[in-house]
Amino acid sequence: MNKSRLLAAASALTLSALAFAHGKPDDAIDYRMGLMTVIGWNIDPLGAMVKGKTPFDAADFAKHANRIANLSDQIVEGFPKGSDQGHTDAKPDIWANWDDFQSKAKDLDTQAKLLAEVAKANDEAKDKEQFKKVAETCKACHDKYKKKD
Amino acid sequence: MNKSRLLAAASALTLSALAFAHGKPDDAIDYRMGLMTVIGWNIDPLGAMVKGKTPFDAADFAKHANRIANLSDQIVEGFPKGSDQGHTDAKPDIWANWDDFQSKAKDLDTQAKLLAEVAKANDEAKDKEQFKKVAETCKACHDKYKKKD
Repeated sequence: MNKSRLLAAASALTLSALAFAHGKPDDAIDYRMGLMTVIGWNIDPLGAMVKGKTPFDAADFAKHANRIANLSDQIVEGFPKGSDQGHTDAKPDIWANWDDFQSKAKDLDTQAKLLAEVAKANDEAKDKEQFKKVAETCKACHDKYKKKD
Repeated sequence: MNKSRLLAAASALTLSALAFAHGKPDDAIDYRMGLMTVIGWNIDPLGAMVKGKTPFDAADFAKHANRIANLSDQIVEGFPKGSDQGHTDAKPDIWANWDDFQSKAKDLDTQAKLLAEVAKANDEAKDKEQFKKVAETCKACHDKYKKKD
């Protein structure tokens, strides 16, 4: 956790100037890795329900689906030009295929927002079907643009 | 990024079983650090506007305020019992003062949701005033429960 970020917020109270650039490559890498972790944390319980590892709970499904729908349009900004270097799993192909990358990110956003919408009906079968579509969009982008471990 | 998390989601398609426990201490630590990074990424541009480092943009302010309001109730679950060990800035005091910790987290959630509400009015002075209240709740919890760098 970057302590200077919190100090910058708190310093608004004291008017002291703690300046740092939003969008520096390292910041962007940390941000997008954090974002993926938070998305994953919310995907997990849905995957477990869909696979029958945990009992289906419509309200819990909807809660996590709503969170993912709010995170799903925050991805692209984590990939500014120049952030292909350093401790990242992002392939340089992203920036060489920027339109396609954005298109894949948009697919995730579309399906994730649809998942939140579908989840309102508390229908297990429909939730499962739409969850698989979300998972497919994650995979489509990762297959092409994420380095293999 | 934990690749097994994405594989678990994708494996819902193949029904192969990639089981892992949601809420293991390491997962929780990674999650809450990721969450704080994402919250910070959205706090940054608001702090910059409030300090006059960037021009006030009501729509941009509201966008980031909305995101923070959606993240602000996801904190406590990142601090399960037993996650005080390892690569974490969280002080063991959290679990010794659990009610107080939850109360501080609730304060953040309350003020962050209020910030999103206030931001709808596109009023720079009110945005600034409410942002400071949010920053105060971050500071109140960090002062007591976060290890100093």
